[in-house]
Amino acid sequence: MTEKLSRNPLPAMFNAETIAMVGASNNMDTMGSVLLMNNLKGGFVGRLYPVHPKEKEVMGLKAYKTVGDIPDVVDLAVICVPTKVVPDIIKDCGVKGVKNAVIISGGFRETGTDGKKLEEEILALAQSYGIRFLGPNCIGIINPYRNLNITTFPYFHGPGSLGLISQSGTYVTQVIDYLEQKGIRYSRAMSVGNQADLDLVDCIDYLGDDPETLAIAAYIEGIKRPRAFLEVARRVSIKKPVVALYVGGTEAGARSSATHTGAICAPNSLCSGLFNQAGVIEASTIEELYEWAWALATQPIPTGRRVAILTQSGGPAASLSDACEKYDLQVPIFSPELQDRLKPFVPPTGSYQNPVDLTYFRDIALMTEKMPRLILEDDGIDCLIIHGLMATSWLRVYDSDPETSEVSMEQMTDMMKGPSKKLAQLPKEYKKPVICSTFKGREIEVITKFLQDDEIPCFYGPEKAVSAIAALCHYGEIRRRM
Amino acid sequence: MTEKLSRNPLPAMFNAETIAMVGASNNMDTMGSVLLMNNLKGGFVGRLYPVHPKEKEVMGLKAYKTVGDIPDVVDLAVICVPTKVVPDIIKDCGVKGVKNAVIISGGFRETGTDGKKLEEEILALAQSYGIRFLGPNCIGIINPYRNLNITTFPYFHGPGSLGLISQSGTYVTQVIDYLEQKGIRYSRAMSVGNQADLDLVDCIDYLGDDPETLAIAAYIEGIKRPRAFLEVARRVSIKKPVVALYVGGTEAGARSSATHTGAICAPNSLCSGLFNQAGVIEASTIEELYEWAWALATQPIPTGRRVAILTQSGGPAASLSDACEKYDLQVPIFSPELQDRLKPFVPPTGSYQNPVDLTYFRDIALMTEKMPRLILEDDGIDCLIIHGLMATSWLRVYDSDPETSEVSMEQMTDMMKGPSKKLAQLPKEYKKPVICSTFKGREIEVITKFLQDDEIPCFYGPEKAVSAIAALCHYGEIRRRM
Repeated sequence: MTEKLSRNPLPAMFNAETIAMVGASNNMDTMGSVLLMNNLKGGFVGRLYPVHPKEKEVMGLKAYKTVGDIPDVVDLAVICVPTKVVPDIIKDCGVKGVKNAVIISGGFRETGTDGKKLEEEILALAQSYGIRFLGPNCIGIINPYRNLNITTFPYFHGPGSLGLISQSGTYVTQVIDYLEQKGIRYSRAMSVGNQADLDLVDCIDYLGDDPETLAIAAYIEGIKRPRAFLEVARRVSIKKPVVALYVGGTEAGARSSATHTGAICAPNSLCSGLFNQAGVIEASTIEELYEWAWALATQPIPTGRRVAILTQSGGPAASLSDACEKYDLQVPIFSPELQDRLKPFVPPTGSYQNPVDLTYFRDIALMTEKMPRLILEDDGIDCLIIHGLMATSWLRVYDSDPETSEVSMEQMTDMMKGPSKKLAQLPKEYKKPVICSTFKGREIEVITKFLQDDEIPCFYGPEKAVSAIAALCHYGEIRRRM
Repeated sequence: MTEKLSRNPLPAMFNAETIAMVGASNNMDTMGSVLLMNNLKGGFVGRLYPVHPKEKEVMGLKAYKTVGDIPDVVDLAVICVPTKVVPDIIKDCGVKGVKNAVIISGGFRETGTDGKKLEEEILALAQSYGIRFLGPNCIGIINPYRNLNITTFPYFHGPGSLGLISQSGTYVTQVIDYLEQKGIRYSRAMSVGNQADLDLVDCIDYLGDDPETLAIAAYIEGIKRPRAFLEVARRVSIKKPVVALYVGGTEAGARSSATHTGAICAPNSLCSGLFNQAGVIEASTIEELYEWAWALATQPIPTGRRVAILTQSGGPAASLSDACEKYDLQVPIFSPELQDRLKPFVPPTGSYQNPVDLTYFRDIALMTEKMPRLILEDDGIDCLIIHGLMATSWLRVYDSDPETSEVSMEQMTDMMKGPSKKLAQLPKEYKKPVICSTFKGREIEVITKFLQDDEIPCFYGPEKAVSAIAALCHYGEIRRRM
């Protein structure tokens, strides 16, 4: 493994100590400046060197006219300059001895024949100096474990276990708040752009060996090296789950991808066959891509498809049951023994056969520990879905009024930390996945926030929880098959 | 119509001026108290009379021992008392001359044989007094146009045009914040519970005639009167769209529904056939139910399936195109004339054939007015999807730092009102639907908030925007067929 890693330049890029930020200036309207600012404000742990032909100082850092002027070893050059300047910068990097680059600049293959020629030139140039690079026409990389964020969007919500590879910069950056709102956190994220040098396959290879990445999500518009993809994805899939969303197999999709990253696209069915052979789980929407990968990154893999449903509400119980059947999951009637154990907790208007419908509860531990424990220790159940954990979403409206609230928001928030930690312990203890469904977002409901932060996926809608459970089961079957 | 409406008691319930809140007390742990509080805090425009055997005053209002003691005509009785007391309350209402009730109390048909018997008794009793009622075992009703909210959850986000009917109280109440976050607002919402008297069909009939309801969403666990459903839903579907989610056709779903609202369920395929005959659009997830109905409530119905895509980002352009093809929508190449008109606005790295990918823009009017207008006035296009409108979501992180932001959050917020209003005008002007997709929620992005408030649907994910467009096209076909 050490030998293989030493050939893949991505570990060195994501662990760079010293970075030349070529194109950063004090003009905040340029991307190069935003890239530097994000890294500065994010608290990058290494050393940053702005490179600009005119600036003497950029955002409080001494600036250098060329990469060659930097009085330090440069582990990584981030290149965000006008297209026609890129070759000169690569030369500078080569002479300086820089071995790794991220080329943000666009205007290459995606713009037509001239651009394609220029892209081939910079590739040849880089190769002549032994430089490996991501891009061009990419949005950069994120390593939250080192506060490294060379993209145009801030990322502040902490390190996680999902490794993201994307042929679209948008799906790395524009989605950051969207992922935060779902409690999903990156271990690494990378935009591959035109894949002139390093491609999707190199990225899967890298994340396959990265210990902080527990599941991989890939947004794909076209696969350059199908054979290598199959080989690498198969090898990685045995170790950790790979989820992919393929877009580009349709006519308009292909038209869009061609002008986007210059990708050449195969029909959807061909790609699905490749994914299937490679042990890759295929998502059909961007939301599934992220949510399934997050479930796979955080939950144990079940050994069967028997799902228990625990709720305080009949509608979601019915929706969850219905969705389970659609996803070919079973919702078996609990054994008489388990029913006997659950019965004392359930009021007469509720039910406890599976789904469990509490209709109403006051003691949150019922749903975060007591009943989950009884259910998970039963041999007849492989997975648990919980819907309806709520504590503060209701309180927040009436909190200001002491006449109507016995407990303050602050007290309730404190009270919820324990139950969340206890529920988060159960998947590890019983080696069975637990996924929550709720309509109460983390901004308004602390139990949602705590569970998400404690790595229990909480998705917004019953069908989403079920589809994530189905993805977990699917991966279990892939693992057993391969 | 007047005659028919006069037979349906629901208009009178939703427009009640005087309401007896039976079961409200000063103990905030009871549902009856919460129902009253929601109505008080929501600013209900009529008169509220708490009824309780012991309290003299409840939340500042004079309380009455019985409904009969209320010195006013009572338009509606809300009954939230222990199961066994319900018959007595109905008698009191009958003697007082109350003609309409919402029975929140549970413990009837959904609990088994004895409960079923009791439910039949209260129905007979109500009929003997000429009382019509919703429930029992329901969560109540909401009419935001009159700040009427007889449910256990607060509803503060204003009146809209979506009429919701649900066999699950959860899908009326627990989802309120979830809907707010999507910018979706009720015209009316009602939970039908066990449907002992008034049922789903009466509700569809009512909303079909309600001028403030422009589309109807129904969550259904079982249809009591299939023949009446077909007749009424057909009649309504010709006037306004009806979207339904049916849950209960699977074994576990049926098990859950039986203990939930005592519904008897038909197989999914049977129900789909019924929906199809009735001109009802069938959703397959709770999110689709709300989002499709919201799109239908706010957007014109397209006359064809030709979709234009306008973005600043290649990934979403590819996803949108791909999803369109999956939903059997066309993404045609624009006519040479339209391409010529769009070209001047698109930078060389972008594209303008359809999808339009601006890659980057500074003038938001490009995406909210200039290009949408050119596209919508083209005869070759029936619908428009826009992805990537952003203004403040980025700013919010760096706003505090004058060195990095030329425009403050407040200024930017003000600047976005105009573009939002202008975009919101276009569907009306061109009679073609516009739907936005974004990853920037309304809490962090004012343009999302403004557009949602101005009734341009903004959904979180490209595939959701496409599926809503497909629902609009589907309804257009239903209308032309019927």
